[in-house]
Amino acid sequence: MSFELHPRLAADSLFVASLPLCQLRLINDCRYPWLLLVPQRDAVREITQLNEQDYQQLWQEVRQTSVLLQNLKQPEKLNIATLGNLVPQLHLHVIGRFSTDPAWPGPVWGQGTAEPYTPAQAEILITALKQRLDSVQ
Amino acid sequence: MSFELHPRLAADSLFVASLPLCQLRLINDCRYPWLLLVPQRDAVREITQLNEQDYQQLWQEVRQTSVLLQNLKQPEKLNIATLGNLVPQLHLHVIGRFSTDPAWPGPVWGQGTAEPYTPAQAEILITALKQRLDSVQ
Repeated sequence: MSFELHPRLAADSLFVASLPLCQLRLINDCRYPWLLLVPQRDAVREITQLNEQDYQQLWQEVRQTSVLLQNLKQPEKLNIATLGNLVPQLHLHVIGRFSTDPAWPGPVWGQGTAEPYTPAQAEILITALKQRLDSVQ
Repeated sequence: MSFELHPRLAADSLFVASLPLCQLRLINDCRYPWLLLVPQRDAVREITQLNEQDYQQLWQEVRQTSVLLQNLKQPEKLNIATLGNLVPQLHLHVIGRFSTDPAWPGPVWGQGTAEPYTPAQAEILITALKQRLDSVQ
Protein backbone atom coordinates (compact mmCIF):
# COMPACT_ATOMS: atom_id res chain seq x y z
CA MET A 1 0.00 0.00 0.00
CA SER A 2 1.37 3.34 -1.02
CA PHE A 3 0.73 5.93 1.66
CA GLU A 4 2.63 9.02 2.64
CA LEU A 5 1.63 11.20 5.58
CA HIS A 6 1.16 14.87 4.70
CA PRO A 7 4.21 16.83 5.97
CA ARG A 8 2.04 19.26 7.96
CA LEU A 9 0.35 16.40 9.83
CA ALA A 10 3.75 14.76 10.36
CA ALA A 11 5.15 17.99 11.81
CA ASP A 12 2.21 18.66 14.13
CA SER A 13 1.77 15.19 15.62
CA LEU A 14 3.51 12.12 17.01
CA PHE A 15 3.02 8.50 15.95
CA VAL A 16 1.03 6.31 18.35
CA ALA A 17 -0.05 3.20 16.44
CA SER A 18 -1.08 1.82 13.08
CA LEU A 19 -4.68 0.58 13.14
CA PRO A 20 -6.17 -1.56 10.34
CA LEU A 21 -7.15 1.55 8.38
CA CYS A 22 -5.74 4.63 10.09
CA GLN A 23 -2.53 5.86 11.53
CA LEU A 24 -3.29 7.01 15.09
CA ARG A 25 -1.28 10.07 16.10
CA LEU A 26 -1.10 12.46 19.05
CA ILE A 27 -1.26 16.17 18.24
CA ASN A 28 1.81 17.68 19.89
CA ASP A 29 -0.06 20.26 21.94
CA CYS A 30 -0.35 19.66 25.65
CA ARG A 31 -3.23 22.16 25.99
CA TYR A 32 -5.70 19.46 24.87
CA PRO A 33 -5.72 15.65 24.73
CA TRP A 34 -6.00 15.57 20.95
CA LEU A 35 -5.73 12.51 18.74
CA LEU A 36 -5.60 12.31 14.99
CA LEU A 37 -6.75 9.47 12.72
CA VAL A 38 -5.34 9.44 9.20
CA PRO A 39 -6.70 6.77 6.84
CA GLN A 40 -3.74 5.13 5.14
CA ARG A 41 -5.13 5.58 1.67
CA ASP A 42 -3.67 7.69 -1.09
CA ALA A 43 -5.36 10.74 -2.56
CA VAL A 44 -8.45 10.62 -0.35
CA ARG A 45 -9.74 14.01 0.68
CA GLU A 46 -13.38 13.42 1.65
CA ILE A 47 -14.99 10.62 3.64
CA THR A 48 -17.35 10.11 0.70
CA GLN A 49 -14.39 8.90 -1.38
CA LEU A 50 -13.81 5.88 0.89
CA ASN A 51 -15.30 2.57 -0.20
CA GLU A 52 -17.97 1.07 2.04
CA GLN A 53 -15.60 -1.25 3.90
CA ASP A 54 -13.08 1.52 4.62
CA TYR A 55 -15.92 3.87 5.60
CA GLN A 56 -17.25 1.48 8.21
CA GLN A 57 -13.75 0.73 9.45
CA LEU A 58 -13.02 4.44 9.82
CA TRP A 59 -15.95 4.99 12.17
CA GLN A 60 -15.12 1.87 14.17
CA GLU A 61 -11.64 3.31 14.68
CA VAL A 62 -13.17 6.69 15.61
CA ARG A 63 -15.28 4.89 18.22
CA GLN A 64 -12.28 2.97 19.55
CA THR A 65 -10.19 6.16 19.72
CA SER A 66 -13.03 8.06 21.40
CA VAL A 67 -13.46 5.42 24.11
CA LEU A 68 -9.69 5.28 24.57
CA LEU A 69 -9.55 9.03 25.15
CA GLN A 70 -12.57 8.96 27.47
CA ASN A 71 -11.03 6.17 29.54
CA LEU A 72 -7.66 7.83 29.79
CA LYS A 73 -8.59 11.49 30.26
CA GLN A 74 -12.29 11.63 31.23
CA PRO A 75 -13.00 14.75 29.16
CA GLU A 76 -16.22 16.68 29.76
CA LYS A 77 -16.93 16.53 26.03
CA LEU A 78 -15.52 14.92 22.91
CA ASN A 79 -15.08 17.03 19.80
CA ILE A 80 -14.85 14.89 16.66
CA ALA A 81 -14.31 16.50 13.30
CA THR A 82 -12.92 16.29 9.82
CA LEU A 83 -12.29 19.72 8.32
CA GLY A 84 -9.26 19.65 6.02
CA ASN A 85 -9.62 23.15 4.65
CA LEU A 86 -5.85 23.60 4.93
CA VAL A 87 -4.42 20.06 4.75
CA PRO A 88 -6.02 18.12 1.89
CA GLN A 89 -5.16 14.62 3.17
CA LEU A 90 -8.23 13.15 4.90
CA HIS A 91 -7.76 13.24 8.68
CA LEU A 92 -10.08 13.16 11.68
CA HIS A 93 -9.68 14.93 14.97
CA VAL A 94 -10.75 13.31 18.25
CA ILE A 95 -10.28 15.90 20.99
CA GLY A 96 -11.02 15.76 24.70
CA ARG A 97 -12.47 19.06 25.89
CA PHE A 98 -12.67 20.57 29.36
CA SER A 99 -14.51 23.70 30.45
CA THR A 100 -11.14 24.83 31.83
CA ASP A 101 -9.25 24.53 28.51
CA PRO A 102 -8.12 27.73 26.75
CA ALA A 103 -10.53 27.52 23.79
CA TRP A 104 -13.67 26.40 25.68
CA PRO A 105 -16.49 26.54 24.59
CA GLY A 106 -15.23 27.40 21.10
CA PRO A 107 -13.49 24.98 18.76
CA VAL A 108 -9.74 24.44 19.21
CA TRP A 109 -8.53 25.07 15.66
CA GLY A 110 -6.61 28.27 15.10
CA GLN A 111 -6.73 29.30 18.77
CA GLY A 112 -3.40 30.47 20.18
CA THR A 113 -0.17 28.55 19.70
CA ALA A 114 0.47 24.85 20.24
CA GLU A 115 2.42 24.03 23.40
CA PRO A 116 4.50 20.93 22.64
CA TYR A 117 4.86 18.12 25.17
CA THR A 118 8.28 17.58 26.67
CA PRO A 119 9.81 14.33 25.34
CA ALA A 120 9.17 12.69 28.73
CA GLN A 121 5.50 13.80 28.78
CA ALA A 122 4.97 12.59 25.23
CA GLU A 123 6.53 9.21 25.99
CA ILE A 124 4.34 8.68 29.04
CA LEU A 125 1.15 9.62 27.21
CA ILE A 126 1.90 7.59 24.07
CA THR A 127 2.79 4.56 26.18
CA ALA A 128 -0.48 4.89 28.10
CA LEU A 129 -2.44 5.21 24.85
CA LYS A 130 -0.79 2.13 23.35
CA GLN A 131 -1.33 0.06 26.49
CA ARG A 132 -5.04 0.86 26.60
CA LEU A 133 -5.64 0.62 22.87
CA ASP A 134 -6.01 -3.14 22.83
CA SER A 135 -8.46 -3.17 25.72
CA VAL A 136 -11.06 -0.99 23.97
CA GLN A 137 -12.94 -2.13 20.91
CA MET B 1 -39.94 7.08 21.05
CA SER B 2 -39.59 10.06 23.32
CA PHE B 3 -37.49 12.73 21.67
CA GLU B 4 -37.49 16.45 22.03
CA LEU B 5 -35.25 18.72 19.97
CA HIS B 6 -33.09 21.07 22.02
CA PRO B 7 -34.60 24.59 21.83
CA ARG B 8 -31.34 26.12 20.63
CA LEU B 9 -31.12 23.69 17.72
CA ALA B 10 -34.81 24.28 16.96
CA ALA B 11 -34.25 28.05 16.91
CA ASP B 12 -31.17 27.92 14.70
CA SER B 13 -32.39 25.49 12.04
CA LEU B 14 -35.28 24.42 9.83
CA PHE B 15 -36.78 20.94 9.49
CA VAL B 16 -35.93 19.06 6.30
CA ALA B 17 -36.76 15.39 6.88
CA SER B 18 -36.90 12.61 9.40
CA LEU B 19 -34.41 9.84 8.56
CA PRO B 20 -34.49 6.42 10.25
CA LEU B 21 -32.27 7.69 13.08
CA CYS B 22 -31.78 11.43 12.72
CA GLN B 23 -33.76 14.53 12.13
CA LEU B 24 -32.18 16.28 9.15
CA ARG B 25 -32.28 20.07 9.47
CA LEU B 26 -30.92 23.10 7.59
CA ILE B 27 -29.03 25.68 9.63
CA ASN B 28 -30.75 28.97 8.94
CA ASP B 29 -27.64 30.80 7.77
CA CYS B 30 -27.32 31.48 4.06
CA ARG B 31 -23.57 32.12 4.36
CA TYR B 32 -22.91 28.37 4.21
CA PRO B 33 -24.82 25.29 2.97
CA TRP B 34 -24.98 23.76 6.45
CA LEU B 35 -26.97 20.70 7.46
CA LEU B 36 -27.56 19.29 10.90
CA LEU B 37 -28.21 15.66 11.89
CA VAL B 38 -29.79 15.11 15.28
CA PRO B 39 -30.20 11.48 16.40
CA GLN B 40 -33.74 11.08 17.69
CA ARG B 41 -32.64 9.52 20.94
CA ASP B 42 -33.12 10.95 24.39
CA ALA B 43 -30.28 11.99 26.69
CA VAL B 44 -27.47 11.11 24.29
CA ARG B 45 -24.56 13.49 24.40
CA GLU B 46 -21.64 11.56 22.92
CA ILE B 47 -21.46 9.23 19.92
CA THR B 48 -19.97 6.61 22.25
CA GLN B 49 -23.33 6.40 24.05
CA LEU B 50 -25.13 5.10 20.94
CA ASN B 51 -25.61 1.37 20.63
CA GLU B 52 -23.84 -0.37 17.75
CA GLN B 53 -26.87 -0.35 15.44
CA ASP B 54 -27.57 3.36 15.98
CA TYR B 55 -23.87 4.12 15.63
CA GLN B 56 -23.65 2.48 12.22
CA GLN B 57 -26.92 4.09 11.14
CA LEU B 58 -25.64 7.53 12.18
CA TRP B 59 -22.62 7.31 9.91
CA GLN B 60 -24.69 5.97 7.03
CA GLU B 61 -26.90 9.05 7.40
CA VAL B 62 -23.82 11.27 7.57
CA ARG B 63 -22.64 9.71 4.30
CA GLN B 64 -26.05 10.17 2.69
CA THR B 65 -26.23 13.79 3.86
CA SER B 66 -22.67 14.46 2.69
CA VAL B 67 -23.36 13.11 -0.81
CA LEU B 68 -26.62 15.06 -0.91
CA LEU B 69 -24.80 18.29 -0.11
CA GLN B 70 -22.02 17.53 -2.58
CA ASN B 71 -24.53 16.84 -5.36
CA LEU B 72 -26.57 19.94 -4.67
CA LYS B 73 -23.88 22.52 -3.91
CA GLN B 74 -20.54 21.12 -5.14
CA PRO B 75 -18.57 22.49 -2.17
CA GLU B 76 -14.80 22.62 -2.38
CA LYS B 77 -14.62 20.82 0.97
CA LEU B 78 -16.94 19.16 3.44
CA ASN B 79 -16.57 19.96 7.14
CA ILE B 80 -18.14 17.27 9.32
CA ALA B 81 -18.13 17.61 13.07
CA THR B 82 -19.79 16.92 16.38
CA LEU B 83 -18.76 19.42 19.04
CA GLY B 84 -21.62 20.07 21.46
CA ASN B 85 -19.70 22.19 23.93
CA LEU B 86 -22.69 24.54 24.22
CA VAL B 87 -25.71 22.40 23.26
CA PRO B 88 -25.58 19.06 25.08
CA GLN B 89 -27.95 17.16 22.74
CA LEU B 90 -25.88 15.08 20.30
CA HIS B 91 -25.86 16.70 16.87
CA LEU B 92 -23.61 16.54 13.83
CA HIS B 93 -22.74 19.30 11.42
CA VAL B 94 -22.30 18.64 7.69
CA ILE B 95 -21.14 21.87 6.09
CA GLY B 96 -20.18 22.70 2.54
CA ARG B 97 -17.19 25.01 2.43
CA PHE B 98 -15.92 27.33 -0.29
CA SER B 99 -12.66 29.27 -0.38
CA THR B 100 -14.85 32.34 -0.93
CA ASP B 101 -16.95 31.87 2.24
CA PRO B 102 -16.51 34.34 5.12
CA ALA B 103 -14.83 31.92 7.57
CA TRP B 104 -12.50 30.12 5.13
CA PRO B 105 -10.12 28.42 5.88
CA GLY B 106 -11.10 28.53 9.56
CA PRO B 107 -14.05 26.66 11.07
CA VAL B 108 -17.49 28.27 10.82
CA TRP B 109 -18.56 28.13 14.46
CA GLY B 110 -18.66 31.44 16.30
CA GLN B 111 -17.68 33.48 13.23
CA GLY B 112 -19.82 36.55 12.66
CA THR B 113 -23.60 36.50 12.76
CA ALA B 114 -25.96 34.10 11.02
CA GLU B 115 -27.73 35.53 7.97
CA PRO B 116 -31.15 33.86 7.79
CA TYR B 117 -32.61 32.71 4.49
CA THR B 118 -35.69 34.53 3.23
CA PRO B 119 -38.77 32.27 3.47
CA ALA B 120 -38.68 31.84 -0.32
CA GLN B 121 -34.98 30.91 -0.34
CA ALA B 122 -35.49 28.43 2.49
CA GLU B 123 -38.43 26.80 0.75
CA ILE B 124 -36.52 26.37 -2.50
CA LEU B 125 -33.50 24.86 -0.76
CA ILE B 126 -35.48 22.54 1.51
CA THR B 127 -37.55 21.33 -1.43
CA ALA B 128 -34.38 20.62 -3.43
CA LEU B 129 -32.84 18.75 -0.47
CA LYS B 130 -35.96 16.60 0.00
CA GLN B 131 -36.22 15.81 -3.71
CA ARG B 132 -32.62 14.62 -3.90
CA LEU B 133 -32.61 12.80 -0.56
CA ASP B 134 -34.20 9.65 -1.91
CA SER B 135 -31.82 9.42 -4.84
CA VAL B 136 -28.66 9.22 -2.70
CA GLN B 137 -27.90 6.27 -0.48
